Amino acid sequence: MKDHETVPPILIERGEGVYLSDREGNKYLDVISSWWVNLLGHNHPRLNAALSRQLDKVAHVMFAGVTHQPAIDLAERLVALTPDNLKKVFFSDNGSTAVEVAVKMSLQYWQQTGQGSKRKFAHLKGAYHGETLGALSLCGIDMFRDKFEPNLMANVEVQGPDCFRCPYELKPESCQAECFEPMHQTLEKHKESLAGVIVEPLVQGAAGMKMYPPLYLKKLQDACKAHNVHTIYDEIAVGFGRTGSLFVCGEHDLNPTFLCLSKGITSGYLPLAATLTEDEIYSAFYGEFSEMKLFIHSHSYSANPLACAVANESLSILTGDDFLENLKPKIRVLGEYGNKLNALQWCGEFRQTGMIAAVELVANKKTKEEFPFEKRVGYQIYQEGLQRGALMRPLGNVIYFIPPLVISTDQIQMMIDTAYDCIQAVLD
Amino acid sequence: MKDHETVPPILIERGEGVYLSDREGNKYLDVISSWWVNLLGHNHPRLNAALSRQLDKVAHVMFAGVTHQPAIDLAERLVALTPDNLKKVFFSDNGSTAVEVAVKMSLQYWQQTGQGSKRKFAHLKGAYHGETLGALSLCGIDMFRDKFEPNLMANVEVQGPDCFRCPYELKPESCQAECFEPMHQTLEKHKESLAGVIVEPLVQGAAGMKMYPPLYLKKLQDACKAHNVHTIYDEIAVGFGRTGSLFVCGEHDLNPTFLCLSKGITSGYLPLAATLTEDEIYSAFYGEFSEMKLFIHSHSYSANPLACAVANESLSILTGDDFLENLKPKIRVLGEYGNKLNALQWCGEFRQTGMIAAVELVANKKTKEEFPFEKRVGYQIYQEGLQRGALMRPLGNVIYFIPPLVISTDQIQMMIDTAYDCIQAVLD
Repeated sequence: MKDHETVPPILIERGEGVYLSDREGNKYLDVISSWWVNLLGHNHPRLNAALSRQLDKVAHVMFAGVTHQPAIDLAERLVALTPDNLKKVFFSDNGSTAVEVAVKMSLQYWQQTGQGSKRKFAHLKGAYHGETLGALSLCGIDMFRDKFEPNLMANVEVQGPDCFRCPYELKPESCQAECFEPMHQTLEKHKESLAGVIVEPLVQGAAGMKMYPPLYLKKLQDACKAHNVHTIYDEIAVGFGRTGSLFVCGEHDLNPTFLCLSKGITSGYLPLAATLTEDEIYSAFYGEFSEMKLFIHSHSYSANPLACAVANESLSILTGDDFLENLKPKIRVLGEYGNKLNALQWCGEFRQTGMIAAVELVANKKTKEEFPFEKRVGYQIYQEGLQRGALMRPLGNVIYFIPPLVISTDQIQMMIDTAYDCIQAVLD
Repeated sequence: MKDHETVPPILIERGEGVYLSDREGNKYLDVISSWWVNLLGHNHPRLNAALSRQLDKVAHVMFAGVTHQPAIDLAERLVALTPDNLKKVFFSDNGSTAVEVAVKMSLQYWQQTGQGSKRKFAHLKGAYHGETLGALSLCGIDMFRDKFEPNLMANVEVQGPDCFRCPYELKPESCQAECFEPMHQTLEKHKESLAGVIVEPLVQGAAGMKMYPPLYLKKLQDACKAHNVHTIYDEIAVGFGRTGSLFVCGEHDLNPTFLCLSKGITSGYLPLAATLTEDEIYSAFYGEFSEMKLFIHSHSYSANPLACAVANESLSILTGDDFLENLKPKIRVLGEYGNKLNALQWCGEFRQTGMIAAVELVANKKTKEEFPFEKRVGYQIYQEGLQRGALMRPLGNVIYFIPPLVISTDQIQMMIDTAYDCIQAVLD
């Protein structure tokens, strides 16, 4: 907040496509899709119309003993569009609650199947899964958790992939996900107490868009199966087309026990989240009232009809008219043109997974020495971006691009050019 | 879910005023305001229009480094309408997150002011403050927490008011909140480790609409001040007019350290929540970037502009045109006519706080013996209600009324009559 004494927050008044406008009429390219949520651009006529149609019927009704068509449609579509093992959907409001639901279901499942010692979760270093205290207990970034450490669940942090600074000194072409070893050891050592392992598949967002290969996920799946541990995929940031396919799990033929979705689910219109799981999990909660095996977790606005209506329309767009096919040239341009950032002397790495790209800035390209924290390189580039009409929001020294999927190839080039200029202006 | 094999969920298609309609055109009086959220009725023309106006501008934009008029307006209004000590507003998505934010701010405040041993919270028996694991750690109802007990924070449960079965055998006219004694002892004993005490002011909702007098809150405030402990008011269910005044704290001249709001904030349209606090708390987080004193808690859809726009319009209605003044005759009718439920031989107590009323059914009026859990008296009455066009949702053996505030006095009488008939049909 003290930063705002000198740099006031910008007051956004309108949105249109990939642009946001402030009160003075300045336009900003929404480089990070308003915290990774917007897929189809602001003020999308079809999404607006879908919302208005539902508004004419009913804005909200409780989701207990009651159902409604928007929720039924959305649940059926999510089940149809995700891997075959995922059959059941539980709605909540945001990414944190989607994760809390998966965690609670996993714990209760083990308890109700006679394996109540399974009460811990493993997460990766650099992981981010939300900030309610349960979700925060799965966080692998000190800054988010250190003030609350004594109040967090005792979980297990595991060193995961770190491709840019690979301790095994491997290149993508030679890598066999050797970095899975610490997770393998954790599963061996803690299998009696581990309920599940949670990951952000392929891209660790808050860690600085750190990317890793699907082979890691394949190894994780096999090891979790062998050790009787649930896998929880947090596709809150990467789901709904960001990586070029609808979901990471589906694209790579992976079958998580739980799949957490939010953010892009309404294309950045309204809060909504879903946690998907298997019949095997569901059936452990199914029984007579007197058995009290039910899952209890009730947010007032669960399955909000307005949000579900927007989500359904967004899915219609994403799955229709070759939408994902048409992403391919954009992904190619983002990669090819983005590569130009490698020319910068501070570019440690330019990396990309589908429509997500990032440049990690370093003080020394050869040693990969980091800029000092206090220098706030990212923050300076953020301010420079605002001057040049780009709303970026670097994570430390990582400048990243996760624009609405409807961005044009010209706009992608402009976005990269702007980032290039901003980095140079600040560091040169 | 197994119940639905014989009683399928009703499929709601439309809402209009205090009524919901299913696909077959059956109408149901929304007796519990769709989980205590709806204030102004379904499909309210002014709320719909406010939502549409904002939709034409922008549905959502991230709330970090960025602000927007709907959030500014809402924050300013909430500060103006709540007690003077509450000066700052933090937005999130639902009741659970509003509580998690208060808990995290309290913990971090004590840590940053050199009192890091304060890491526990006291809550009342019967308390409900949400179901993410942090919020669930403040729950005083076994059914919600027992499956997750080993994963919850270690807090302190305190026996609070229990007016219907008052262990001191007092009547309202003779009561001096003697039942505050256990809380007094808890504060004495744990003052070094207590960060805060959380309460649902006046009405413990999920406990079965258990009601208690404001004197308890006054004693709590004095004792917390004396023992250097924060007070957290969860007005998620009772705020925004339910008790006849806008907020319990304001009406009774109470100054909680934190005030958590959600549910009625958008009059039941969209998920939104706010946590209010004092300058004293805020200033402990204010500093140079390098000090890292900031509060970090970021939900993607925080301060969603659509939700804020609806909340602003709802507040305009609640605070305009003698809206609260016009509630008084309704509150009177609810009390006078509701008293007729006392005639039922199973009525242990009919109780009321403003526009919230409840009848607690007992097997024996004299001994107050409860109906056995397995008999599912409430569930049978719920089904009976559906047949008669009333969507009730009893809490155990407590049938309660928390209708949209726009309900007419005729509709109030019909609602009570229907409940009376349903109870008699099931128990006679």
